[in-house]
Parts: sequence; C-alpha cells; structure tokens
Amino acid sequence: MSTTKAIAEDPSATFTGWASTGSLPLKKFSYHPRPLGPQDVEVEITHCGICGSDVHTMTSGWGELSGPCITGHEIVGTVVEAGPESLHKVGDLVGVGAVVDGCGECKECKEGFDQLCPKSTYTYNSTYRASGAKSYGGYADRVRVNSQYAHKIPSEISAAEAAPLLCAGITTYTPLKHFGAGPGKRVGVMGIGGLGHLGIQWAAALKADEVVAISTSDSKREEAKKLGATKFVKNEEERKAARHSLDILLLTSNDKNTNWADLIDYVANHGTLVLLALPEIPTIAVPPSSILWRHVSIAGSLIGGLKITQEMLEFAAKTGVRPWIEKMPMSDANAAINHMMEGRPRYRIVMETEAAARLQRH
Amino acid sequence: MSTTKAIAEDPSATFTGWASTGSLPLKKFSYHPRPLGPQDVEVEITHCGICGSDVHTMTSGWGELSGPCITGHEIVGTVVEAGPESLHKVGDLVGVGAVVDGCGECKECKEGFDQLCPKSTYTYNSTYRASGAKSYGGYADRVRVNSQYAHKIPSEISAAEAAPLLCAGITTYTPLKHFGAGPGKRVGVMGIGGLGHLGIQWAAALKADEVVAISTSDSKREEAKKLGATKFVKNEEERKAARHSLDILLLTSNDKNTNWADLIDYVANHGTLVLLALPEIPTIAVPPSSILWRHVSIAGSLIGGLKITQEMLEFAAKTGVRPWIEKMPMSDANAAINHMMEGRPRYRIVMETEAAARLQRH
Repeated sequence: MSTTKAIAEDPSATFTGWASTGSLPLKKFSYHPRPLGPQDVEVEITHCGICGSDVHTMTSGWGELSGPCITGHEIVGTVVEAGPESLHKVGDLVGVGAVVDGCGECKECKEGFDQLCPKSTYTYNSTYRASGAKSYGGYADRVRVNSQYAHKIPSEISAAEAAPLLCAGITTYTPLKHFGAGPGKRVGVMGIGGLGHLGIQWAAALKADEVVAISTSDSKREEAKKLGATKFVKNEEERKAARHSLDILLLTSNDKNTNWADLIDYVANHGTLVLLALPEIPTIAVPPSSILWRHVSIAGSLIGGLKITQEMLEFAAKTGVRPWIEKMPMSDANAAINHMMEGRPRYRIVMETEAAARLQRH
Repeated sequence: MSTTKAIAEDPSATFTGWASTGSLPLKKFSYHPRPLGPQDVEVEITHCGICGSDVHTMTSGWGELSGPCITGHEIVGTVVEAGPESLHKVGDLVGVGAVVDGCGECKECKEGFDQLCPKSTYTYNSTYRASGAKSYGGYADRVRVNSQYAHKIPSEISAAEAAPLLCAGITTYTPLKHFGAGPGKRVGVMGIGGLGHLGIQWAAALKADEVVAISTSDSKREEAKKLGATKFVKNEEERKAARHSLDILLLTSNDKNTNWADLIDYVANHGTLVLLALPEIPTIAVPPSSILWRHVSIAGSLIGGLKITQEMLEFAAKTGVRPWIEKMPMSDANAAINHMMEGRPRYRIVMETEAAARLQRH
C-alpha cells in the first residue's frame, strides 16, 4: 500500500474543489493529484457542467461513497502543464468527459467503445488501476489527466458551451449515430432537459425525417420547436397520433414511476427504445408483449468513446448544435446544485471558475 | 351478424378436432369451416406438433377463451381441395404455421414481416377480418386456409418432421438470421427443448463460431453436442467461463422465476438477448445496469414471415436440420398434452392422424 500511495499522490501539488461525502451540501476539499505523467496534462478548469449523474453520486442515490468525492465530468479548461508525450500543449483549450483512463488494448478500446473498457477509470469516484490513485472531477480548480482523454475544443465553440457536450452531448449523439438516425428515420426524445435538448438538436442536424419531442410540460412546446423538433407530444391527441411511430426513442431519464408500456407504445415495429440513464432502482418492469409482438428492442447506451466524442465536437462546430446553458459561479456550487435539483434549468447549468476571466474565448 | 355468419361458415362441410374451452381435458368438437375461397386449399391433416403456445392457450394462461378453441399451428397435411386460384394443387404436401391471413398491403406485409401485420389472423383463437369466421387449428382432421399461408414441404423432409419447423423452427431461425448468426458470431441458446434444440441446429448450420447450449439439466449435455453445440453450460465453472460471451442469446421461454440479471450476464457487450416466448405475467423485471453499462439489447422475435418460412424449409432440406420428434396418435390428444406438460419430450411431440397412413412420404 505504501508503494501505491507514493505513486498515487504528488505532494507538491494541491487541488481544491467541492466534495460530497454522501450528502449535501458540498464542502471545500483539497487533495494531492496524481503525479504528472509523461502523457498527462494539467488543466486549469474554467467551466464544469452539472450532470444528473453528479447528483445521483453526491446524494448516494447510486450507492455509498467511499470518501470525499469531487464530482463533475463536463470539464473544460486550459492546459497549464503538459508531460513530454502529451497530445496537447500549454495554452490549449481542452475538455474532459466521464472517462479518464482505459487499458487501450481490449476489444472495446480498439473498436472505439473505450467507455466500456472493463479497466476504465471514471473521472470521479473511481481508482486508477496502475497507481491506485483516486480520481477527482471537475468541481475544482484543476485536474490532471492523460492527454488522450482530453479533447481539443474546436475554435467555433465557446468554453462554457463545450462543457455539456462532454457528457450530455455525447450521451445523446452516440446512440443516434449507432442506431442510424438520419433521413428515413423518425426519432423521438422523451424528456426535454440537459440531455433531451441536445438529442433534439442532433436528430435535427442529422436530418431525421421526424424529430418528436415528448414532454409532460406544455411550457416546453415552443422551445422544442426552436431546438428543431418537428412535432411536440404532450396531450392525449398528440400521444395517440405518435403511437408506434418512432424508429429510435431516446429515454433521457427513468425512475420507479416510469410507465414502460406507454413508452414502448411510441416505438415503431422494429424500433429501439434507448436508455441513457440509470434509475435508482435495481430493475425496471418491462412488458414483454410489445417487445415480442412488435419486434421492439430495448437498448442501453453509455456516453461515448474517444473517437466519436471528437467527431461529435467537430459535428457541433459545423452544424451549430450548442447546449442552452445557464452560467453560475463555481464558488456558489451548492446554489448551483440546488438550482439543478429544484429548478430544472433550461437546460444545463455550467459552473464557471475565476480562471474563466482569463480566457481569450468565451 | 346473420350476414357475417352466412359468409363465415360452410354448412356442407364439418371438420372435427380436439378443443379446449379454457381448461383440460380437450374434448371432441366439430365445426363448419369457412367456405372454400378461390385462393384456398383444404388440407387433410396428417401431422400437428404441440407447441408451448397451445398449452398456454388451452389452459387460459394467456387469458380466457371466448369459445371452443382447437389449437395447433404446426400443421402438415395433403391438399384435398383447391380453389381455382390456389398456389397448391390436390395431392401436394403443405404446412401451415401460426398465421393464416394478413392484409397483404401494409408495410409489414410488404417487407416480409407479415406475421406482424396488425390485421393478421392467427391459426387458432382468432377471427378472419373479412368474414368474421373463427379460425381453428391443427388438432383436427382438416383445415381450410388461404394457399398463400400454406408452405410447400420440400421433398427431403418427412411430413412428421416438417410440422415442428412451422412454429418452433421458424421462431428460432428468424432471429438468428435477423441478428446475423454466422461466422464471427457466438450464439447461445437458453433452454434445450422444442425451440432450443432447433436453435442449436440452426446456429451450427449457419456456421456460428460458437454454439453454446445453456441448460439446467446435465442430462442434455451429450444431446446438445449431437445437436451441434460447441459448448454446454450448466455448472458454476461453465457459467463463469460463458460470462459476457454471447453475441446472440435466444431465450426459449421465461416465467416469473427467470433471473434476468443472470441471463444478461451471458450476453457480450453490444450483444442481444432475444425473447421468443411470452410469459404468463404482464411485466419482466430487467436490470437496466447491464443494458446501459455493456450496451446489451433486449429484443423480441415472433415466429417469421411467409418468405423467410419458405427459405427456412429449404435451408433445412439442404443442411439436414430436423426436429427430434416423438410421434403420438392424435386420437390420444390428451395423453400427448399430458406428456408435453409433464414429461418434457425430447424434443417435440408430433401428433399423427389416421390420414398419415395414406401418405407416400413418412
């Protein structure tokens, strides 16, 4: 253990962020980062988005935390140190998503699904397999990561707007590409929030025949159209018209109250309902009849690999897909979390550090 | 109603079979069939397989029956009458599966998924949309159907062995073809029975890299290998070795005791668990974590369309895939049903009528 600890921490550096030990409020917490490896970059964080996963984690909704956890995996910032083999140089604007390490050798890593690598390290609440170092996320002033897991942010995209693309963006982009969203396909998005508002934009940018926004809130009707939805489904008549119509339906969240029969009813024969997020319950109650009688599939999709993440950033740069964000100072992280939990921001909160003021690009 | 009845029944003909009114035993029952239409054939039944669906239906496991129901949708027999537009002629050996009518015009019908046509008529316990005639199945001396829904049985296949192909065979063949079973794919079959023993044979004939038979019974070990399985999974060590290994896993049956987490654990990342049969419960408790974290899909597959059914019969003729059957006289239908419910036949019971003695081909 002493050997592991020696490699795991660099006592000469101290990073500070907002940590949870399993419940709110977040508290200031400092840690020694891992030593800067030859491929690593040290990133001065300017922005970090707040993801639903952060809240599940910090409130112990997905299980107990082993120690103080700095969440945040929609990280953008400036490279301030770079190892000799780093892919980025000091001054580059980079983004870090939900995964910061993998084996690089398994089938998943080789085929572009490195997010599924069984040896992967998540950006927070995880452990680096080589050193035993704990990983800490982006509600902080800095982070050190392998430069392969840091993405160059295209110049067309502001630092603040880039942040949500690194989780909400790639989480919705990956399944749409995988299941062939585009001309000839009818895409639905259930839930217009941090994920959904990007899903609608991607589907529209990919030129799907229909982009159907399904919501429980009439207040989203006009905004859904602005985002690119061709149809909005809320009331009974709209629901009936949308039955069996969607080739791909992205389900942005689910919980114990989710009505799976109603959801599957929107999916066309041979279509796919895609789960993008885990509920805080161990099983979901799926009616097998629709799956069988109409050849519907239920699939899951988890963020995205390195290659498709870079592709997504370039696609966003080219097509103008951008998250709708509310900026809040990271110094008020607890206020931002409360806003996330109560207020349903439209549509993503991005926390900004003091370092953001020094950026050339906003 | 009187008009409908006039069209629905041909009082000059009387067919006799074994019917359920919702519970066992089956009782002798006679009915007037629909009038012989211009495209119809009248089939003198020589063989009918016993399918799990028959048992669910006759015992009211899937809901109450509206009246006497003659089950049986693995029907083989000789054409004894043929309308002027029939595709078959008197003397032909034909087979009838689980569907006997569809609209012929919808997307499903046009794309070869006519079994999913919303206007389809099932072989039994269903109603013809045009006439209101009830459909009756193959535990009987005769049946009248549209000749489009009767398949020519290739000369290489015996009448008795052809019967189970029409439901058990196509139910397992369709998803294997659809999900690309063949070289490069690892196929699993959970449950070695009427469906599973054909699934194993198809996967082997399609030259899948691995054909993994999963069973709770060691007594199937040797038989699974004879059927073409490359691996047999039963004990703890075998189960561990098979974890995350299957690109396609056919689930031949499921009920309230099915352990979905264990099942999904066999499926490889990006793989598909295919449900082939409905349980007698409205929902199944699926753990969403595996679906999400490993990109596993849960799909359903229902029998098969007309085109792929004919393809399957020809593939069986060519490759030698045959059901393993136990023949029993249809005059003892209740004994056959009891054997099915108690004895787990190896692997399909085919009931034989007195007309079978007149066949040239056995």
